[in-house]
Amino acid sequence: MNTLSPAQIRAKIRAGEWKKPTSGLAPAYAQANLVILDRKFAFEFLLFCQRNPQPCPVLEVLEPGDHEPRLTAPGADIRTDVPLYRVWSKGKLVEETPDITPRFGPGMVSFLLGCSFSFEHALIGAGVPVRNIDEGKNVSMYRTNRQCTPAAPFSSPLVVSMRPIANELVARAVLVTGRYASVHGAPVHVGNPEALGIKNLDKPDFGDPVSIRANETPVFWACGVTSSVAALSAGLDLCITHAPGHMFITDIPNENLATG
Amino acid sequence: MNTLSPAQIRAKIRAGEWKKPTSGLAPAYAQANLVILDRKFAFEFLLFCQRNPQPCPVLEVLEPGDHEPRLTAPGADIRTDVPLYRVWSKGKLVEETPDITPRFGPGMVSFLLGCSFSFEHALIGAGVPVRNIDEGKNVSMYRTNRQCTPAAPFSSPLVVSMRPIANELVARAVLVTGRYASVHGAPVHVGNPEALGIKNLDKPDFGDPVSIRANETPVFWACGVTSSVAALSAGLDLCITHAPGHMFITDIPNENLATG
Repeated sequence: MNTLSPAQIRAKIRAGEWKKPTSGLAPAYAQANLVILDRKFAFEFLLFCQRNPQPCPVLEVLEPGDHEPRLTAPGADIRTDVPLYRVWSKGKLVEETPDITPRFGPGMVSFLLGCSFSFEHALIGAGVPVRNIDEGKNVSMYRTNRQCTPAAPFSSPLVVSMRPIANELVARAVLVTGRYASVHGAPVHVGNPEALGIKNLDKPDFGDPVSIRANETPVFWACGVTSSVAALSAGLDLCITHAPGHMFITDIPNENLATG
Repeated sequence: MNTLSPAQIRAKIRAGEWKKPTSGLAPAYAQANLVILDRKFAFEFLLFCQRNPQPCPVLEVLEPGDHEPRLTAPGADIRTDVPLYRVWSKGKLVEETPDITPRFGPGMVSFLLGCSFSFEHALIGAGVPVRNIDEGKNVSMYRTNRQCTPAAPFSSPLVVSMRPIANELVARAVLVTGRYASVHGAPVHVGNPEALGIKNLDKPDFGDPVSIRANETPVFWACGVTSSVAALSAGLDLCITHAPGHMFITDIPNENLATG
């Protein structure tokens, strides 16, 4: 799988030949969080993202009813090209499914939002190990005591991902990820979990715990899961997201999302 | 005026004591382009901006009917705090006025978009002279042959601003403005006007011509006027913009819009 292009991987996912998380696939290309909701709430949700660009960096918004991401993955189908979706009603999970075609009506608006896989690839390239990848786990994620700027009916605490970084590499990790402003960018916090209201790093709210070694500092980045939490906060009749770790793979090289 | 805070300047504008362009006022603070239109088209216009962030960097979008920019200028009034507005109907200018309160209905949505004044301040600070400021003119702006990504009913060619830069300072100008990704960022083009479809630099489509000296290169940045052209492209019954050069002055320090 690792040698396939994004389009080839999406075709395999669409055919049901890949049903697992997408971490490590097409590592040079941006993967995306997905939120789908009714056009009645599309302005307010886009406004939420605009007001909170660090956790919710918008890569593409599809036209109402459109299922082809024409800008970031021409030829793809947003209804079938994610390995696993979650369907929500009034904030409750009602189904996990690999195909949302039956649910996708003419008023549905799909939002693709940047994902930290993009900068993890850059960190590794810069010689900064990424613990969750080395341990084969999903990254540790936490709700914080910081509130995002709301856009009614959407609100959310800032959700962060945490990676333990060797003290002598913290500055490099900041600089490397700071280049990726359109996919979360520089850390929102370095060091003290309690300053973010996180009581126990071993018990993440999402994802898996990872080991933290002596002489390592926990570093926190804004996390795209914030967009899912915000989308569900409105209690809409229907909202569809990707299942954790099962991202949409775009044709956008990570490097296109970097500056400087 | 130069020693006043943004809030003090806005109060003077509101009181009718300042009716001129805002260039040079509160130079450390971000000034903004303004577009106001009906909420029926707010999602599509925000989508246009999201798809074209370099010319249309959104600083704040107000709630429908709200006239206070709570995030970028708490206490301000978007209806009175710009020295001169333009009122448009079906794409035609119908009025210039310093007060749009009578026009501002409960469904109006106000968009504030970043402005190159922010990086001009940084250029000067970095020792890169800005010709339009030195000559007391409005910057030269041109429609290009590049089309922005549309979001129906909004479309526009990319509009650029041009500043002649001494050849030995071009690289510095690129680096300095590249830090300001949320206010147009690095140049979109350096050197050849014809590559952008610009036939005669002496005849800008907006603003004033400036002198270009030997050993200077024309450098082109994405320009916020693009947002006005796009807003007018839809032929809406009512659209309100700032008059050229008469910007809204926010409380956001320019430095907050820079990275790295």
